[in-house]
Amino acid sequence: MDSKSGKTISKAVISRLPGYHRFLGELAAAGIERVSSQELSRLMKITASQIRQDLNNFGGFGQQGYGYNVRRLYSEIGRILGVGRPHNLIIVGAGNLGRAIANYHGFSEQGFNFCGIFDANESLCGQEVAGLSVMSVDKLEDFVRDYDIDIAVIVVPKEAAQKVAEELYRMDIKHFWNFAHTELSLPDDAIVKSVHLLDSLMELSFEISQKEMK
Amino acid sequence: MDSKSGKTISKAVISRLPGYHRFLGELAAAGIERVSSQELSRLMKITASQIRQDLNNFGGFGQQGYGYNVRRLYSEIGRILGVGRPHNLIIVGAGNLGRAIANYHGFSEQGFNFCGIFDANESLCGQEVAGLSVMSVDKLEDFVRDYDIDIAVIVVPKEAAQKVAEELYRMDIKHFWNFAHTELSLPDDAIVKSVHLLDSLMELSFEISQKEMK
Repeated sequence: MDSKSGKTISKAVISRLPGYHRFLGELAAAGIERVSSQELSRLMKITASQIRQDLNNFGGFGQQGYGYNVRRLYSEIGRILGVGRPHNLIIVGAGNLGRAIANYHGFSEQGFNFCGIFDANESLCGQEVAGLSVMSVDKLEDFVRDYDIDIAVIVVPKEAAQKVAEELYRMDIKHFWNFAHTELSLPDDAIVKSVHLLDSLMELSFEISQKEMK
Repeated sequence: MDSKSGKTISKAVISRLPGYHRFLGELAAAGIERVSSQELSRLMKITASQIRQDLNNFGGFGQQGYGYNVRRLYSEIGRILGVGRPHNLIIVGAGNLGRAIANYHGFSEQGFNFCGIFDANESLCGQEVAGLSVMSVDKLEDFVRDYDIDIAVIVVPKEAAQKVAEELYRMDIKHFWNFAHTELSLPDDAIVKSVHLLDSLMELSFEISQKEMK
């Protein structure tokens, strides 16, 4: 993980970059040209000094007293995030969550193109989801070979996830967005980003407990 | 955010607690009684020293040379997370994502009970989702008053989310699990935990870009 200056960027900073991107995109869409770290701080509920520190990792972009140029910072952070560069994705699992992801707004405009959706349940095959026809997992190998797929979204039951991921890895897919509530164990050249919904709900319940203890 | 020792616990530590809880739950289910920080490190891909440091925030639980007692650590972390204490939830938005959440396995066994699902689209009302009948948002106020609802899951379009959250807050719901791709702005006594799916996908694309630059 290297920035322009060759420094290693912490996971905490990286995890905040999409948030900066989102807020700056909203400001740009509203026609706002400049924003101070104080204003960003108020919007994002991160301290202004944290914001200045985060953005310094990438060489700054700000001018003392003038704030940040919204469009420039938005596009720079987008570039750092690899956004806009097209990615071809497949979704494995056409249940509710797989369908929700296929239908979610805002992915394609950031360069994430859903090319196919697959399920092991033959009775779902042929159904239309977000303009795609659900295909049998038997067709995965041919599909992945014919299209330039670089990310697989894993939305299968927890028990099946590891096996599905290994098969996809064998088909030369190295990047996984995993929604199964388990950790995928894959060789070191694979990149796995997991969304654990229960973890997020537990963080909320933790904050509720803490508030009630006060 | 206070631990037993009265120290403030960082957000980074808190965000790792559900992961500890998940891994320890899996070890306990597999009948494993003790685990070392080295073994946890290998499973969780966090350094052993980070694990020891994290768990020291809560008074340790480990014995030098003996590792951690899996069940005790699991239940202690669960207690810290406020897990097991029942929470009554409603889901506002009965689209694909709302349905996926209602059907997601593992919430109820951790004490998260979905009591109702609502939608503004009258044509969805009466449909069954995970054993619940979709209700009109017009019935929200009566429902929230009659049941002891403490968490609302917001799964409405981004444009509607702020208004829905404000109405729920007025109905005395203070805890929000937000899936709309926007930040909710609510009074300070509200707790909002957001799941931004696009942010997670951007973190993955960031890691892909970084790998390709090497």
